[in-house]
Amino acid sequence: MSKIKEELNLAIEEVEKYIKKYSDYNLKYREVLKEAMDYSLFTGGKRLRPVFGLKTFLMFDDNFERYMKYAVAVECIHTYSLIHDDLPSMDNDDYRRGKKTNHKVFGEDIAILAGDALLNTAFELMVMDDENLENELIQYKRKIEAIKEISYYSGINGMIGGQVIDITSNKENITKEKLFNMYKMKTAGLFQAAIISGAIIGGASNEEIEILKDYSLYLGLSYQIQDDILDLEEDKSIDKLTYVSFLGIEEAKKIMDNYVSRALEALDKLENRDTIFLEKLTKLLVNREI
Amino acid sequence: MSKIKEELNLAIEEVEKYIKKYSDYNLKYREVLKEAMDYSLFTGGKRLRPVFGLKTFLMFDDNFERYMKYAVAVECIHTYSLIHDDLPSMDNDDYRRGKKTNHKVFGEDIAILAGDALLNTAFELMVMDDENLENELIQYKRKIEAIKEISYYSGINGMIGGQVIDITSNKENITKEKLFNMYKMKTAGLFQAAIISGAIIGGASNEEIEILKDYSLYLGLSYQIQDDILDLEEDKSIDKLTYVSFLGIEEAKKIMDNYVSRALEALDKLENRDTIFLEKLTKLLVNREI
Repeated sequence: MSKIKEELNLAIEEVEKYIKKYSDYNLKYREVLKEAMDYSLFTGGKRLRPVFGLKTFLMFDDNFERYMKYAVAVECIHTYSLIHDDLPSMDNDDYRRGKKTNHKVFGEDIAILAGDALLNTAFELMVMDDENLENELIQYKRKIEAIKEISYYSGINGMIGGQVIDITSNKENITKEKLFNMYKMKTAGLFQAAIISGAIIGGASNEEIEILKDYSLYLGLSYQIQDDILDLEEDKSIDKLTYVSFLGIEEAKKIMDNYVSRALEALDKLENRDTIFLEKLTKLLVNREI
Repeated sequence: MSKIKEELNLAIEEVEKYIKKYSDYNLKYREVLKEAMDYSLFTGGKRLRPVFGLKTFLMFDDNFERYMKYAVAVECIHTYSLIHDDLPSMDNDDYRRGKKTNHKVFGEDIAILAGDALLNTAFELMVMDDENLENELIQYKRKIEAIKEISYYSGINGMIGGQVIDITSNKENITKEKLFNMYKMKTAGLFQAAIISGAIIGGASNEEIEILKDYSLYLGLSYQIQDDILDLEEDKSIDKLTYVSFLGIEEAKKIMDNYVSRALEALDKLENRDTIFLEKLTKLLVNREI
């Protein structure tokens, strides 16, 4: 196994440990809610967003325990969005990651509530008492700032907004600008949430945070376009509104390459930070050897 | 009009103003999301929870602008819960407050997303920059503490948890203890969220916060039992699992009276605070002259 994949697996293991840690509780009289939340939280997610968040944090600070609740929060938000997206009135999917979707197992009512609960839990986690928080104003400010970024990128100007654009758009009303906004909000949003919160909690400077906003945007965009290209190659979702179906595969590939370059250029601007892992993972991801 | 009702109306007006203020934005390409959120946010809600929160805050501090984003956040959470509760797979209601339910107007997909968006927006609001926040540690601690309480009472140990107990319970598996927990979480939860966050942001002492936890619990419980009694008198929802259907109307009334007394006793314990409005509103509410 290559060194980067080994390092990636170690990071995934670490993330997995904290997802388990933060979901280790019982719910009397409402066991089914916990069961439904866990079902989707532990169904083969690649943990990409928390890994990116964790590795970003580590460029600025070693004490990664301080960041992990935010990493897990982003994964909870990602998971809730999948549960709600799969619902009959949305994408109406019966399977995800090779297993039945949440509502197929637990019913629509519990699936909706499990989604709500995962979103709510994300915020509960982020305001949990920090074991290692110095009693300093700057720490509290960073905490609020990280929650602000995560809630922004998951909300009406981020993931939820992008999902609404997706379900209300069609080949007649789509434009290149609208498609860009949809991808930016719907997919790049949570990559940005993870990476920027990692930088903030890690103590990055404002300049570094701005650079990472660029990096995470172009990372997320190229990840999504690569996903569309793979879908096409597997003959899936031809009808979906994507860069590929809208602009053709050649143009889509060109745009993706351009975004990958912009992501890597952004990383290059981070002076005196060890960006090697993020660089390699970015390349690995868009070639989808993962 | 009685003095208490006049004061209540003034408080409602103030709350209304801030709900408008904090929902004054446009969403390009996703106008329908904003429309759906506003539809339910401005459909005749009584604004009880934010009013209780505001009036609690005012017992401790005059500068109520500092609290209003939390009041509006609780109302957003209340509103999202109604949208999701009304969905076909949940209570399947076509009307609420005399108007078509959200999914009847906008479709299930947008209704689910509008609910998600209102929950997310609640948290975005709470971490918004405060105009009047002194640059002091104590202010930031209170902020985090208030968000912690609100997220607790709206989540798996609060409102969402109570809703799950509700939809999974029936006459065969219900017990008195389970029913109590359902009411506590499902209805009292958001009253607690509003009142306790008002106290925290207002600078109440820990002892006062504990007293208000009791007050808001018994207020919420008696409010819900009174609601059940009214439903029965209007021949509505006889099949629903309530204190009335489980214990009979006489026993339910006795329990309600007991809870009202406990709420008022708690208020009595707040020394040197002007509790008159809360006292009167509590009485008004359980007699439902409102």
